[in-house]
Amino acid sequence: MNFNYSEKTISLRKKLTAFFEENILPIEEEVSAFNYNPDNRWKRWPGMEDLKIKAKDAGLWNLFLPQNYGELSPGLTNLEYAPLAEIMGRVLWSSEVFNCNAPDTGNMEVLAKYGSPDQQKMWLTPLMNGDIRSAFLMTEPQVASSDATNIETSITRDGDDYIINGRKWWSSGGMDPHCKIAIVMGKTDPNAPRHQQQSMILVPMDTPGVKIIRPLSVFGFYDSPEGHAEIVLENVRVPKENLILGEGRGFEIAQGRLGPGRIHHCMRLIGMAQRSLELMSQRASERIAFGKTFKDFSSIRQEIAQSRCEIEQARLLTLSAADKMDKEGNKTSKDLIAMIKIVAPNMALNVIDRAMQIHGGKGVGPDTPLAHFFVAARMLRLADGPDEVHMYQLGKSVINTYAKNKI
Amino acid sequence: MNFNYSEKTISLRKKLTAFFEENILPIEEEVSAFNYNPDNRWKRWPGMEDLKIKAKDAGLWNLFLPQNYGELSPGLTNLEYAPLAEIMGRVLWSSEVFNCNAPDTGNMEVLAKYGSPDQQKMWLTPLMNGDIRSAFLMTEPQVASSDATNIETSITRDGDDYIINGRKWWSSGGMDPHCKIAIVMGKTDPNAPRHQQQSMILVPMDTPGVKIIRPLSVFGFYDSPEGHAEIVLENVRVPKENLILGEGRGFEIAQGRLGPGRIHHCMRLIGMAQRSLELMSQRASERIAFGKTFKDFSSIRQEIAQSRCEIEQARLLTLSAADKMDKEGNKTSKDLIAMIKIVAPNMALNVIDRAMQIHGGKGVGPDTPLAHFFVAARMLRLADGPDEVHMYQLGKSVINTYAKNKI
Amino acid sequence: MNFNYSEKTISLRKKLTAFFEENILPIEEEVSAFNYNPDNRWKRWPGMEDLKIKAKDAGLWNLFLPQNYGELSPGLTNLEYAPLAEIMGRVLWSSEVFNCNAPDTGNMEVLAKYGSPDQQKMWLTPLMNGDIRSAFLMTEPQVASSDATNIETSITRDGDDYIINGRKWWSSGGMDPHCKIAIVMGKTDPNAPRHQQQSMILVPMDTPGVKIIRPLSVFGFYDSPEGHAEIVLENVRVPKENLILGEGRGFEIAQGRLGPGRIHHCMRLIGMAQRSLELMSQRASERIAFGKTFKDFSSIRQEIAQSRCEIEQARLLTLSAADKMDKEGNKTSKDLIAMIKIVAPNMALNVIDRAMQIHGGKGVGPDTPLAHFFVAARMLRLADGPDEVHMYQLGKSVINTYAKNKI
Amino acid sequence: MNFNYSEKTISLRKKLTAFFEENILPIEEEVSAFNYNPDNRWKRWPGMEDLKIKAKDAGLWNLFLPQNYGELSPGLTNLEYAPLAEIMGRVLWSSEVFNCNAPDTGNMEVLAKYGSPDQQKMWLTPLMNGDIRSAFLMTEPQVASSDATNIETSITRDGDDYIINGRKWWSSGGMDPHCKIAIVMGKTDPNAPRHQQQSMILVPMDTPGVKIIRPLSVFGFYDSPEGHAEIVLENVRVPKENLILGEGRGFEIAQGRLGPGRIHHCMRLIGMAQRSLELMSQRASERIAFGKTFKDFSSIRQEIAQSRCEIEQARLLTLSAADKMDKEGNKTSKDLIAMIKIVAPNMALNVIDRAMQIHGGKGVGPDTPLAHFFVAARMLRLADGPDEVHMYQLGKSVINTYAKNKI
Repeated sequence: MNFNYSEKTISLRKKLTAFFEENILPIEEEVSAFNYNPDNRWKRWPGMEDLKIKAKDAGLWNLFLPQNYGELSPGLTNLEYAPLAEIMGRVLWSSEVFNCNAPDTGNMEVLAKYGSPDQQKMWLTPLMNGDIRSAFLMTEPQVASSDATNIETSITRDGDDYIINGRKWWSSGGMDPHCKIAIVMGKTDPNAPRHQQQSMILVPMDTPGVKIIRPLSVFGFYDSPEGHAEIVLENVRVPKENLILGEGRGFEIAQGRLGPGRIHHCMRLIGMAQRSLELMSQRASERIAFGKTFKDFSSIRQEIAQSRCEIEQARLLTLSAADKMDKEGNKTSKDLIAMIKIVAPNMALNVIDRAMQIHGGKGVGPDTPLAHFFVAARMLRLADGPDEVHMYQLGKSVINTYAKNKI
Repeated sequence: MNFNYSEKTISLRKKLTAFFEENILPIEEEVSAFNYNPDNRWKRWPGMEDLKIKAKDAGLWNLFLPQNYGELSPGLTNLEYAPLAEIMGRVLWSSEVFNCNAPDTGNMEVLAKYGSPDQQKMWLTPLMNGDIRSAFLMTEPQVASSDATNIETSITRDGDDYIINGRKWWSSGGMDPHCKIAIVMGKTDPNAPRHQQQSMILVPMDTPGVKIIRPLSVFGFYDSPEGHAEIVLENVRVPKENLILGEGRGFEIAQGRLGPGRIHHCMRLIGMAQRSLELMSQRASERIAFGKTFKDFSSIRQEIAQSRCEIEQARLLTLSAADKMDKEGNKTSKDLIAMIKIVAPNMALNVIDRAMQIHGGKGVGPDTPLAHFFVAARMLRLADGPDEVHMYQLGKSVINTYAKNKI
Repeated sequence: MNFNYSEKTISLRKKLTAFFEENILPIEEEVSAFNYNPDNRWKRWPGMEDLKIKAKDAGLWNLFLPQNYGELSPGLTNLEYAPLAEIMGRVLWSSEVFNCNAPDTGNMEVLAKYGSPDQQKMWLTPLMNGDIRSAFLMTEPQVASSDATNIETSITRDGDDYIINGRKWWSSGGMDPHCKIAIVMGKTDPNAPRHQQQSMILVPMDTPGVKIIRPLSVFGFYDSPEGHAEIVLENVRVPKENLILGEGRGFEIAQGRLGPGRIHHCMRLIGMAQRSLELMSQRASERIAFGKTFKDFSSIRQEIAQSRCEIEQARLLTLSAADKMDKEGNKTSKDLIAMIKIVAPNMALNVIDRAMQIHGGKGVGPDTPLAHFFVAARMLRLADGPDEVHMYQLGKSVINTYAKNKI
Repeated sequence: MNFNYSEKTISLRKKLTAFFEENILPIEEEVSAFNYNPDNRWKRWPGMEDLKIKAKDAGLWNLFLPQNYGELSPGLTNLEYAPLAEIMGRVLWSSEVFNCNAPDTGNMEVLAKYGSPDQQKMWLTPLMNGDIRSAFLMTEPQVASSDATNIETSITRDGDDYIINGRKWWSSGGMDPHCKIAIVMGKTDPNAPRHQQQSMILVPMDTPGVKIIRPLSVFGFYDSPEGHAEIVLENVRVPKENLILGEGRGFEIAQGRLGPGRIHHCMRLIGMAQRSLELMSQRASERIAFGKTFKDFSSIRQEIAQSRCEIEQARLLTLSAADKMDKEGNKTSKDLIAMIKIVAPNMALNVIDRAMQIHGGKGVGPDTPLAHFFVAARMLRLADGPDEVHMYQLGKSVINTYAKNKI
């Protein structure tokens, strides 16, 4: 475990921080206000494409992708990327500026790792260029989708095509007008062994039968322009070449997709928590009640101290998971990945909640990023499987480890 | 402490439950969908007035008001009203149907207790009839308003008028097209002793100088049609008769207003939590993952058992506060009122959060009332003063009690 | 739910409080010091018998027993007894003074409810007189005894006798020189239906084959003179008349025994917590650090405020369970009894722990009752079944209730 | 932050683990039983000196001391020592075997850093040889000693001597028959500036006027043979050369002493927690209730998963503090040191408590190390200042940091 920043990271952090100060923070409120305005729902903030070009020009592009894809990505390790993702977490809409936003990142990884050359050319290239966006259609309303064997969408071979039927929801990004392609998880063979029933297939969003039913709100937020879509797939027909990796490989791809995505989410959560800590520290230094500045109340100091402790621990844990993934691969690191998935969202919720409370009414309203941070973090206790599923598996693994080595 | 239901309560509970089953639950989703639709923002659901007539006809009207106002209210005690408020808490928008919605209830109490006959005729009567709605302008963005001595809005005598200047926010109900009157808290004399600087004054919403700046979102919710308004008062001139009770009496009125309002909020929170418990129990009995129905996971049973324990304790505490208020008055009951104000929102947040988690993505989305419950409960950790203020005062009171009686 | 004190309770509370002030508190430290001194281990404090006579003379005797046994008990309801048990909880060794100490109370109830006239004459009378003490041999080291069907001790009929073999531990009171009789739970028929395998039988402590292996410490405490014994039963032979109620009735007796015992434990826990709150309030009013008296630190006020809230809620819940037991019986009240069993020990641990912390080193040492309170409360998260077992059953019951009544 | 083990650490860990397996674990219960037996109170387990020789021969001696003292210590960095201290934490009495036990470690550091050559020859050498033990007399019963400026013991110059008067308690190690020397904190000049009033002075335990009043129990444990002593210093006269560093330097020495000591304590706490996790995993894999092995209850898996997460985070945080101390010194690292002081004991208490609960009655009794671990960890929430003091200072520091750098 060597968490010292590499030269590359040091240089990119400096650049990224400067970019934030120059190009992101000054317009933070303007972009948020645009996105929150119901009149703009599912419209993209007009300045986004220019900002993306600036970021690309600054070499702050596709930072997430561990492989080097020529000039399109710097090929950072997870450990190198982690502190950069933390910075992006400080402003919710900023990841897209650097082409580092979910679910595109995960989808790009899937295509980079498992896609055929044709699939890569067709979809990976424009995604890496930031020309289009994508969705990942996994969760279904009718079943507990965190147990992926429950998933019911059918992918049925018909001549040279597959026909897809099912209902998906919480398809993040699905409302974005730039969203052109979806990766869909479904069953090609319900009679195969439990972990070989599922496959993943590429479905262009404009394929007939793809019906966006409605956007889902999270608490009251719609997260425009990406949104979270409920989508019905009704006799959706795509060529057989759209299948990724092969029939029955869906579970395997899902596993491969999740590790890095979790690191990214967790680092962004740490960024949210860190910024919340800073905001509450500033509030504490200014606000007065009952004749004392907030910072002189011991209870407020305790909350800030606790938050500092929790953030730093989660940060170290995430770095250690990133490091292990880099060195030993995702599979060996699965316990550590489960650990950060359990720890980071709950840590962030605790910290953000304290920050909201110290801000009073302002904290739950639109004038700070806190309420939206909270909702984003709350959702991440569910996305990619609720805490409980990860604890269920981690607990089993820990018990097995120590039950064998009696002391 | 005798918490047995009175005959009156038993009969009203039966009626209210029947009313819910017949008139509220069947249209719950329709009304919510109307209110959430941005196209309807600040419009009232068209069926509301008819529903109110039905409720009035059923004798389910103004249940909250402890005094008897002829046929307009049944004159329940706090203890009698509490279980009815709990039922109303089960559906967020339902209180208005029975003319029992905040902040109107508190405003009516202020007018009933402290209003002059003219003030009562002008504003209390139409409020009790449900013909208009009202706002309470207390909190200010610039100061920690939970320490009411901080409030800066000025109320200056000028001949036979008062002139009001200041900025208020979180004025709940202020966006409602039916909102016709506001009670404004401000300083008539900044040089008076600390608790005699403040006064309350009636300001019709259409008075020149009353400017609604914007609606505030809570997390992402706008709570249409009531909303939470930011309002600037700029040289707002009202006749001197609009002052309530007298100059320097604002603090005294605020104190008198808060007790019952807290009981109402707390009972509604218990209703939200109770419904969340029921929803999660039903979910647990149906959903399957990893080969087991949720109800057979010990961790899920624990969450449901914990929730049941927490709800019942908060319910008993609230009943005991209501009972004490009825028998000994608000002032003697201040510690107990502080206790439920601390306990109920946090209890509700815990229970609702568990219910959301058990519902997975559905729990944070628009298809259950859970996310909105959560936000409502979260706000009530701040409304009428954050937890911390109540703990600060309660802690002091407890220490003083026991420091004197050494053991 | 009418929690008002009855005349009887008011009068007894007054008497009991006076007795504490006169006879218990002045010697509290002396008795504790005697009991903690290893030289006195398993010796009874010499003044105890005199104190018991005083209490008996004052009519403060066998207050716990819901039936009236002539002059030996006042026949209080659970609701009437609860506030008296709370007072006794304030001094750990005081219950015995009033013949209200576990496990004798539970054993007396078993004999009173289920004992034959001969069994009652032989054992109930001297127990009610306070002439002897008793033990309850239930828990076994080899199995999870909270699932009573696991219990392995055998009770085998042999002519006119039963022969008992097994190993029991955590037999509280088993080290006391006055302990003369044990009620033993064991299997008379391992092949009977699951809940009819167990029986209870009376075993005089001086029966050959009853071997006290060792006293168990709880954390570092030995709880002399009662202690917690590990006991081996080796071919212990008693006459068949010692069986209580009949073969296979053990489970039924256990159920009947537990309800009131839990109320008693919980009320004592509330007494411990209440006293801890008072001690920490006094400490907070006196101690100074960093230029401030503890009571002026908002964090300390918060802890005291929280404690007050938690105690009062647990108190109300326990009273409501007592009330329901009185009116509807133990069986109908089982959910409420489970709830207080879950709530009270954890509440007490939280409160006591905060009190210890505010006391600094003094709080974990021998100069306050806090550390011993903590250990007693910690043990009560396990005694009569760990929290988890009660949550497991309560959770199931709640789910079943609400799953049926869909909303 | 490079937490990879150095060659030295890897080799020492291997040796230390082997030593544990060969020499510590096989006699763990024997030594504990000896120490718990009241007949042996304040006697040292007879095999200890032989074990110490073995450890010294194995090169496992004075591992804690960051400086190299010739053959007496290997001169490890804090980061190198941390994983070794973790192993020692697994058996409470084992640190002494390696001459790594508090408070001797801290005292040796003080003498090594600040002692005069004569003081070092007289006391450091025998301490490093393990020939004697020592005490540290800081805490006083009458004042909140965590605010060191409160300390009242007087150290008054009288000719060539100092005369010391005061009352100290919680002097760990003070009961040990090998304890020969104490470092005493007291005031040489009550009128000096606040942080220059205090000095530290060496007081041989056999100096006239040093009166051991009593041993203090922690919960019920006496921690024989070291114990925690209450000591009165009555006109204790020592030569002026016994003063360490100079008058008014006490605070400075205290600061220098605390950093490494906290790392040691925290690493041992992590060892306790880790072992508790292993014990509970084993228990979970074996015990059966309600027809299921504990490991198949989701709630038990959750507790184990949570524990794993908490331990790993605290471990990383402690390593990062050790690393920073090595590289940047104690002063710059004070926030991180405060953080581990806050985090580690609470983490350990949570984990140990869960482990106790899973063990049922066995968990709070004498048959596992858990109850003693719990008490040791509980005490460490108070030793060297309660959590609250560290949060008070850390909170202030964090607020100051971020209040300046506005975002």
